[in-house]
Amino acid sequence: MRATVMFGAGDVRIENIPDATIIEPSDAVVAVSRACICGSDLWPYKTMEHSDSGRRMGHEAIGVVEVVGADVRAVKVGDLVVLPFAYSDGTCVFCHEGLPTSCVHGGFFGTGVMDGAQAEAMRVPQADGTLFVLPVGKDDALMPSLLTLSDVMGTGHHAAVAAKVAPGKTVAVVGDGAVGLCGVIAARRLGAEQIIILGRHAGRIALAREFGATDVVSRRGEEAVERVRALTGGFGAHSVLECVGLEQSMLTAIGIARPGGAIGRVGVPQDESMPASLPAFYNNITVSGGPAPVRAYIEELLPDILEGRIEPGRVFDKVARLDEVPDGYRAMNERDAIKVMVEI
Amino acid sequence: MRATVMFGAGDVRIENIPDATIIEPSDAVVAVSRACICGSDLWPYKTMEHSDSGRRMGHEAIGVVEVVGADVRAVKVGDLVVLPFAYSDGTCVFCHEGLPTSCVHGGFFGTGVMDGAQAEAMRVPQADGTLFVLPVGKDDALMPSLLTLSDVMGTGHHAAVAAKVAPGKTVAVVGDGAVGLCGVIAARRLGAEQIIILGRHAGRIALAREFGATDVVSRRGEEAVERVRALTGGFGAHSVLECVGLEQSMLTAIGIARPGGAIGRVGVPQDESMPASLPAFYNNITVSGGPAPVRAYIEELLPDILEGRIEPGRVFDKVARLDEVPDGYRAMNERDAIKVMVEI
Repeated sequence: MRATVMFGAGDVRIENIPDATIIEPSDAVVAVSRACICGSDLWPYKTMEHSDSGRRMGHEAIGVVEVVGADVRAVKVGDLVVLPFAYSDGTCVFCHEGLPTSCVHGGFFGTGVMDGAQAEAMRVPQADGTLFVLPVGKDDALMPSLLTLSDVMGTGHHAAVAAKVAPGKTVAVVGDGAVGLCGVIAARRLGAEQIIILGRHAGRIALAREFGATDVVSRRGEEAVERVRALTGGFGAHSVLECVGLEQSMLTAIGIARPGGAIGRVGVPQDESMPASLPAFYNNITVSGGPAPVRAYIEELLPDILEGRIEPGRVFDKVARLDEVPDGYRAMNERDAIKVMVEI
Repeated sequence: MRATVMFGAGDVRIENIPDATIIEPSDAVVAVSRACICGSDLWPYKTMEHSDSGRRMGHEAIGVVEVVGADVRAVKVGDLVVLPFAYSDGTCVFCHEGLPTSCVHGGFFGTGVMDGAQAEAMRVPQADGTLFVLPVGKDDALMPSLLTLSDVMGTGHHAAVAAKVAPGKTVAVVGDGAVGLCGVIAARRLGAEQIIILGRHAGRIALAREFGATDVVSRRGEEAVERVRALTGGFGAHSVLECVGLEQSMLTAIGIARPGGAIGRVGVPQDESMPASLPAFYNNITVSGGPAPVRAYIEELLPDILEGRIEPGRVFDKVARLDEVPDGYRAMNERDAIKVMVEI
């Protein structure tokens, strides 16, 4: 079968590899229908050292269950399923608490250890806890939006939940990538009154406005902080969604958070330490967030997609076949595309 | 009048200075009955550069209102009052939201700008919003516990609230100083099932046990992390109260927090950046806290003191007259005393 393998920074290839198979009785094999390229895939694309064996890529998918292991009960061959970016058993204490990304038998796809989703098929551990069966057919027009349940829509929602977005609140979203745009959707969905998007790219900003952003701040650094304060009565935003993960974006997030406010961070931090710990402390700002427990959010978000109230699939502005995936990486890395959907 | 003035590291003197007076019509002058030396006073005691003019010290007090400005309505001459470590107008948006430490007309006592409480008297700005009138006489036996409402009991409570302590939760308290000990009281008061105190000083640990600590961890660093994990089923504590403020204590706090758990930090951070941002992120740990809005907590905590359900005044293990304050600093700095009460 064919799969996307990264051999080093900028070196993404479609390789022929052995077919995905069942290893554990709790596994399933899923034939991937659609996958994505993620903003987080761009970190290794920029920095990965050369590897002769390479790393399987991709952690977002919709597909059809092809084989199930002997212990699998909740999904069956032929089911159309969403694959969350993390696998989880669905039964441990953390899964019960709604945090499947900390599952005691869990892990992450496309990190070099597990199969990646930018492929014709993949082995899915803990299939019963991981896969979510969709109540639609695989040609449904909602497929792009449903695909975002595997990561970006759930991640934007997690940022909003962690930042305590609630009716009437003022929200600022740092980052105009696919996650930031889904954060705008999530903030509006949770009742935010004012939603300020921080970003500079005209197309993304236009989409953010359609998703519900009420204000745009295109400056950076201290100028951005001043502008957000001016837009919020001088105080800053109740809720800040940090959707980038860089030191500068976190500095901005802390600078624009209102005293007593909260930051939901979902951009994978690129630094070992968090800046501006002192201002965050003196202003009693809460910093929360992490890898989104997207599997736990699907049930809540799915009806809004099925009934057309939210359209997160609009973040896909480029479609690639599997053999076009290397060019998809290039396009996202050069910011020619917000997010690439891969049709297998 | 006499007041405590710090002229540099290790150089604390009792000086004769001009009497406290009304400057703004919203001021009061309070004759201090009892004050404290705070753990946070030890930072300048260790590090302050020499200053010819010096810095007035102290931010915790009970006293009697001596003079009120023309606009003061809520307190009157002769009232026995608690002084929170921060002053606040009681009317701004942040005061209404329960965060008087971010009051738009507020500030902090004993920081070099405002009067300090280790003195015969002090000017109190925003008297109506700041001072809390006590329903007891100044010779009441509860005075030491009531005095902790000005800082350490409210601060321990804030750590517990920020760390989301609730009935049945597992709590770890990093630091066996007066705030950590009050954190134990607060955790028990909020219904924690298991309370682990991290500390090494026998007398403090004994008091922590009397306050409700169920387990003691006396190791440090990685050994402390392993021990707390062993005591909590391998997962860590739901709620961690960080009552120190050093990089090492924050590292420990993040190491012992359970995935999805929360850290309430009230130790003033001594570093610009927060360590272990990545582990905190991957485990979805919430970091919250800051200067405690103690003024907002007095009404909740006062009945428990008046009715004897909590006895935070037991953290005072040394009493000093005003002229003994310099020796009180020495004793606290050398860890001969947990916390010094000053009787004026």
